[in-house]
Amino acid sequence: VIPSLVWVFHYREGLSWDGSPAEFNWHPVLIITGFVFIQGIAIIVYRLPWTWKCSKLLMKFIHAGLNTIAMILAIVSMVAVFDFHNAKNIPNMYSLHSWIGLTAVIFYSLQLLLGFAVFLLPFAPVHLRAVLMPIHVYSGLTIFATVIATALMGITEKLIFALKNPAYSASPPEATLVNCLGLLLVIFGSLILWMASRPHWKRPPAENAKILRPIAAIPEGTEVESTMTNSSNADKSDLRINTEAARKQNIKFDEAGQRSTM
Amino acid sequence: VIPSLVWVFHYREGLSWDGSPAEFNWHPVLIITGFVFIQGIAIIVYRLPWTWKCSKLLMKFIHAGLNTIAMILAIVSMVAVFDFHNAKNIPNMYSLHSWIGLTAVIFYSLQLLLGFAVFLLPFAPVHLRAVLMPIHVYSGLTIFATVIATALMGITEKLIFALKNPAYSASPPEATLVNCLGLLLVIFGSLILWMASRPHWKRPPAENAKILRPIAAIPEGTEVESTMTNSSNADKSDLRINTEAARKQNIKFDEAGQRSTM
Repeated sequence: VIPSLVWVFHYREGLSWDGSPAEFNWHPVLIITGFVFIQGIAIIVYRLPWTWKCSKLLMKFIHAGLNTIAMILAIVSMVAVFDFHNAKNIPNMYSLHSWIGLTAVIFYSLQLLLGFAVFLLPFAPVHLRAVLMPIHVYSGLTIFATVIATALMGITEKLIFALKNPAYSASPPEATLVNCLGLLLVIFGSLILWMASRPHWKRPPAENAKILRPIAAIPEGTEVESTMTNSSNADKSDLRINTEAARKQNIKFDEAGQRSTM
Repeated sequence: VIPSLVWVFHYREGLSWDGSPAEFNWHPVLIITGFVFIQGIAIIVYRLPWTWKCSKLLMKFIHAGLNTIAMILAIVSMVAVFDFHNAKNIPNMYSLHSWIGLTAVIFYSLQLLLGFAVFLLPFAPVHLRAVLMPIHVYSGLTIFATVIATALMGITEKLIFALKNPAYSASPPEATLVNCLGLLLVIFGSLILWMASRPHWKRPPAENAKILRPIAAIPEGTEVESTMTNSSNADKSDLRINTEAARKQNIKFDEAGQRSTM
């Protein structure tokens, strides 16, 4: 966020809302602040151990709230570009940056809407939540990575268009600063993906989710299947199939228990 | 791969190795063929159910072999650009595309080297493999996503530089084709990430890995802890801690068993 402000205020025209390049400048600042930084924080908000004491519902509101702020900032930043383009008679939506960027904003809004309906409103059954949660996590991370890729394309475009004398290829200080900004975006994205994919940073399951985990928390007095089978190969293979099925079910319930129970 | 060839042969100067733009054209073709397509296939090669019957060692050789081919093609494609730049007196390594692209190639080579030393050579102990496997998977997927982002930046640069009359902003057919190529790269990347992150597409564990999984495949005659505890709260909480620890250990051994045992 800081390098983007240095870029806009020190090397470019600052910020305003008057159809000038200073209006365009809201675009990188709001995208980096909202669509990269705030979205990144929203993604890993369940992964901060000091939040594990907070209620799951509160954390969901924070997750949804940050994503809503990010979406609003992304939309305002797009309005700034369209407004600037129209004022300068520059065509809209011709570049790969604009195609992928608009697609990302649309998918992000759908993701937010679906997430709200399924995981925040109290109507969806646990089974549906368990099925949709891995999809929610996957599409969230994929959209986030796509947003960073789109930001890198946008930086490339802007440097080529804006740097004329000296050109981008002459590596003036502005080019170096903004290249470093691009590298920071990649590093930030990599860190968020790392935090979001470490199993031991998962929020521990809620108490009532324990009953959903048939193997890890075996009810008292229940004997385990293996004590009832003899040592023939057929039975061994049976056991293997059963435990494999149970393992898969466990993965599923783990998702439901750790991620979608209120 | 096909749209990149259509781009180069139908709209651009084709392929040659003479310092002309036709030498540059090897860059997008080899990057998309090697660094995107072949790397993508290398990533999900363990996830194709019909390969589960093949030996793990064979699959590792295929995984390492495809990645080696991808690395060689990426390096040749970079040589093509440096050669073209030098012939035309265009500066090297000034753009964000080149910074991130070169970083990605360096990390990719290190990843390949480390993967070869740890997972293919028979010296590394299972414990080390289990610790390094999640890192290998994470860095592999992050490098792959970064490569696609870099390709999108490269497409953006090339379209801005090459399309002059009509310009990129006038959306000539070439721009539309190459924008679609960019979208296809994002879709391909998303599919690979989906396949690589679905637990039920994981290669099933090898037979000898079963013994490493204390809870899912309990040795015969062993009684489960819960049958030995009474129902006091203290013991319940004890059990919870134990099973939680076992769950974490299981995740770890799962990684070792399913991913790094030969």
